[in-house]
This record gives sequence, C-alpha cells and structure tokens, in this order.
Amino acid sequence: MYSFIATWPFALQAAQAAGTVLAAGGRALDAVIAGIHPVESDPAVESVGKGGFLNENGELALDAAVMDGDTLKTGAVCAVRGFEHPVDIARAVMEHTRHNILVGAGAEEFARRMGIPEAGMEALITPAAREAWQQVKTRGHDTIGAIALDENGSLAVATSTSGANGRISGRVGDSPIIGSGFYAETGVGAAAATGLGEDIMRTCCSFRCVDLMRAGLSAQAAAETVVRTAHEAIVRHGGRPDCIALVCMDAAGNTGAAANHKGFAFARAAQGLAPQVIEVTPVLDKDGENTFFDGVAGYER
Amino acid sequence: MYSFIATWPFALQAAQAAGTVLAAGGRALDAVIAGIHPVESDPAVESVGKGGFLNENGELALDAAVMDGDTLKTGAVCAVRGFEHPVDIARAVMEHTRHNILVGAGAEEFARRMGIPEAGMEALITPAAREAWQQVKTRGHDTIGAIALDENGSLAVATSTSGANGRISGRVGDSPIIGSGFYAETGVGAAAATGLGEDIMRTCCSFRCVDLMRAGLSAQAAAETVVRTAHEAIVRHGGRPDCIALVCMDAAGNTGAAANHKGFAFARAAQGLAPQVIEVTPVLDKDGENTFFDGVAGYER
Repeated sequence: MYSFIATWPFALQAAQAAGTVLAAGGRALDAVIAGIHPVESDPAVESVGKGGFLNENGELALDAAVMDGDTLKTGAVCAVRGFEHPVDIARAVMEHTRHNILVGAGAEEFARRMGIPEAGMEALITPAAREAWQQVKTRGHDTIGAIALDENGSLAVATSTSGANGRISGRVGDSPIIGSGFYAETGVGAAAATGLGEDIMRTCCSFRCVDLMRAGLSAQAAAETVVRTAHEAIVRHGGRPDCIALVCMDAAGNTGAAANHKGFAFARAAQGLAPQVIEVTPVLDKDGENTFFDGVAGYER
Repeated sequence: MYSFIATWPFALQAAQAAGTVLAAGGRALDAVIAGIHPVESDPAVESVGKGGFLNENGELALDAAVMDGDTLKTGAVCAVRGFEHPVDIARAVMEHTRHNILVGAGAEEFARRMGIPEAGMEALITPAAREAWQQVKTRGHDTIGAIALDENGSLAVATSTSGANGRISGRVGDSPIIGSGFYAETGVGAAAATGLGEDIMRTCCSFRCVDLMRAGLSAQAAAETVVRTAHEAIVRHGGRPDCIALVCMDAAGNTGAAANHKGFAFARAAQGLAPQVIEVTPVLDKDGENTFFDGVAGYER
C-alpha cells in the first residue's frame, strides 16, 4: 500500500501528482519530488517557490531539502536565488555529492554545474509578492513538507519554502535542517514540520517524532506529543511559542498530524483514497497573536 | 561546581580561557565564547577560524553556532567570509534577532550592521592553508565544540569550524546545525559533535545524546550509545561511516566522550581540576581509510 501526506491545503496538487507516481509503482523519493514541483511552480502559493515571500532586501531566496529513508542520505539547499525548483538542487546535492547542505552562492554555482534550469530571480517574483514585501506586515511561513511511502516500503520526505516575508537576508528556517524540518528512516517513520522554523528547531521536532514512532507510539500520538512537547519546552524556558505544526507517517503508511494553533490542514492520498484536504483539530491553542515579525527588519539593534 | 569540556587537544587553550571565566563566577554562555575565541584566532589550528581549511574555490568560509541552554535559543552562521570570530556573529544572531540561522552574504551583511570587526578574507588565509588547498589531498574536519556549566547550573554550547579542506563552495557540515553539531538544555545536558558532519547529521547525534541523558543515561553511556548508534545506523542503511566523535555533559557537570576511531581527545577544566587534555578509547574502530574527499572537487559529475 502506498501512502502520501503533505502540509497545507495547497498541497492537494502535490497529493495528486505524488499519488499518480505511487499508484504507478514509482519510488517514494520520486513521488515527493513530483509532489513538490507543482507547488513550487504555482505563483498563487505565497510561501513556496515562484511567487514566494521576499526577504528584507526584496530578494526571493529559497530553501529546500530531501531525505531518502532507505539510505539516511539527505540533500539541502539554503537561500538559493533564481531557481524555480530548489528541491531539484537539494536532490542533486544528495545524489551527486558527498555533502548534505549547500548554501547561498555556492549552491547556485553547483546548480549551474549540474545543468539545473535557471529562471533568474526576477522571473520568479510576482507582483503580489512585491506588494506583500512593501506592506511588510504580511506574515506567513507555510512550508510544503511532503512524505511518501511506496509499494516497496521505502519512505522519503522533501520540503520547500521561501521562508517568512521580510526575513533578514540569509535567514534560514527549519525546512532545510535535518531533524528539525524533516526526517525519514525506512522501516521506522518520517516527519515534516511547518510553522515558525525558529521554534520548531529548538526541540528538533521531526527527529523526535520519528524517534517516538521508533519507541512504539502511533503516528498520531507521536505528532501530538511532539507538538505539545515543543510548545511546553519553549514556555518552560521562558519563551512564547509561535505556530508549530507537523505531519508524520509510520512504516506502514499510517499518518499523524498536529498543531498548536487553529487552521492547520494537510493533503492526503493513498491506495483507494482520492486526494483530499483534511483539517486538523489543534492539540492546544497558543495564546494571542504571533509576535514574530513585529519589527520591519525582523531584528532589534 | 563549574565544568567545561571541548573537542580536540587544540581546545586546551579553550579550557584555560573558559575555566578563568567560570572560576570567576561567569556565565556558561560567556565561557564557551571565551573558550572558542583563542582557537579561532590561532593560525596553527588548521580547521577553525584564521588558518582554517579552504573550499574548492580557495576561499575561507566559516561556520559557527551557539546555544543557551536556559532559553533553548540558538544562533548560527554558515559560510561567512572575512570574519575572524564567526562565533560572535552567531551570538549576535541569537541575541539580536528572532532568527536562528543566517547564511553566506546575508550573514556577512548582518555582521557589518552589528559592528562586528571584519578582518577581510585574505588576512585570515595562512600560507599553510593555501598549501593544503593546493595539495588537495589533505583531509580533516576537526571542529571545536565547547560545553560549559556555570555555578548557577546553566549549560551552554558553542561550535566553530572551517569545514573540510576542498569542500564545495557553500558546503555546510553539522557544526552550525542544531541537534546535529550541538544541543544544550539547562537541567538536562549538552552535547557537541566533531568528525564528518554529513555522517553526524544522519542521526542528529547531539540531540539524541541530550535526549538519552534526559532518559536517565549517564553522560558517558549517552556518548557511547550515540556514537555506536550513529555508526550502526549508517552501516544498516548501506553506508560506510567516516569519523564520528562527541563530547557531552550532564546537568551536574559530569562529562562523557566517545568516538568510532582512534586519536580522538578532548580538553577539560573544572573546579579543582587544572585544564588538561584527555585521550578517548574508541568504542569501535571504523574500518579502513576515510573515503570522503577522494575526489578533487568533492563531488561526482
């Protein structure tokens, strides 16, 4: 039985594309990449790929990652400009280097060497993204994180994001960070997170989620425990948690999802199940407004 | 009782500097930064700061991170050029932004805005580093990772590295990656890793180590379990592990250290204990030579 889950309603198109790959007997790794592609190309998705949020300098710098649960190999790129499909560069890092992470200009240079199509940054910036940047106050940090299990029992995960609107140039969130934004181990489970990356990283949410499934928790129990634990750890250490949400899958394709805020939803596909969007009931409801980007430049002097 | 541990014999000067801060009642956070500074400035340390290994383009791009166990806040910078003390930029990210990670040119721009002294890249490249780069075959990936416990019971960790010789431009290893290169939670424990970052990341060694101490393992048992588990997971998933080593400390200041190879050592200081270097008996001995940088450019086309 194949299975697929990905974050946010805009991932319905990911579920459709990945479901097609999996239904045809394709690999989990190919399915997550196929699922991410249309979301990266969709200018209406304001937090991923083309049309994504700009940083404080008005640049579109993208992050993406992929992990093959069969080998525990990963590839990730951070703050790459001018490429519509950063997830393809992440895959090339995984498959054609002995490295895991390439950042900035080095990642762009590598992508050119690998012959990955370069759109140029301006071609990927939409009028809506420019307007959101000028207004500054638009917030949002909705990563696509996609997990697939194929007929062979292999698990894979991939993520792609622009990061938050008005972030400092060079800022990287959890999405390309192994253990925080994503993790997958075939035979155990996989997880992908979305929300404020800085808060997700503080307790390595995705690695912890897979470790909890390894310890015997169901996917849903693992997801809920991770979100609750992450939220409570931040409170215990004097912080005020922002949005934390997570999807996961166990080795048999059962899925889990949890959030500490209203409005989280995921897209789902599986054998005998048409691609659909499912809303998540929050495990707890964080207090008040998000505080994250109150400052124009996102940092205090 | 204060306590300090840091990776590799070159950290003896770190133990001396950090021990002085801690003996005077200083904070763990200040101690790890004070410990890292002389190592970053020492041109004879070929894998950290000034005199560090160059990437394939002959550039010196540095990574560093810091984590305050009291708050679970972190700051990290990746691939920054021209700054002798990347750990100071990491601390500024933690203390003056709501972000955790800044990479490349964005991190350099931020450092300038924060008034952190800029040496210029050429001033930090030594003739020995240039020679190692020309010979290409010189290998090494010896990060400084430093952990301190202060009289108030606060834990902090910091890391700093140049990364491996001849790495692809923009490559980032485990050192600035939370959960992989470092982790600290006051009241629980802290860990820092060194070796081939790509292999350390695959099982989030530092986060797992702290989680094992949380579950009740001693620092030494946690260190040994993590190294063994990381090594075996790579073998189980069809890989051939390179060097993996780790130091850690529990909430009471007891330390642990483990490696999957000969030659690992750490520096140590504590109340009533003069700064000293201690060799580590490997928990297992990985087979054969390191395979990592057999290719000139570090990747296959």
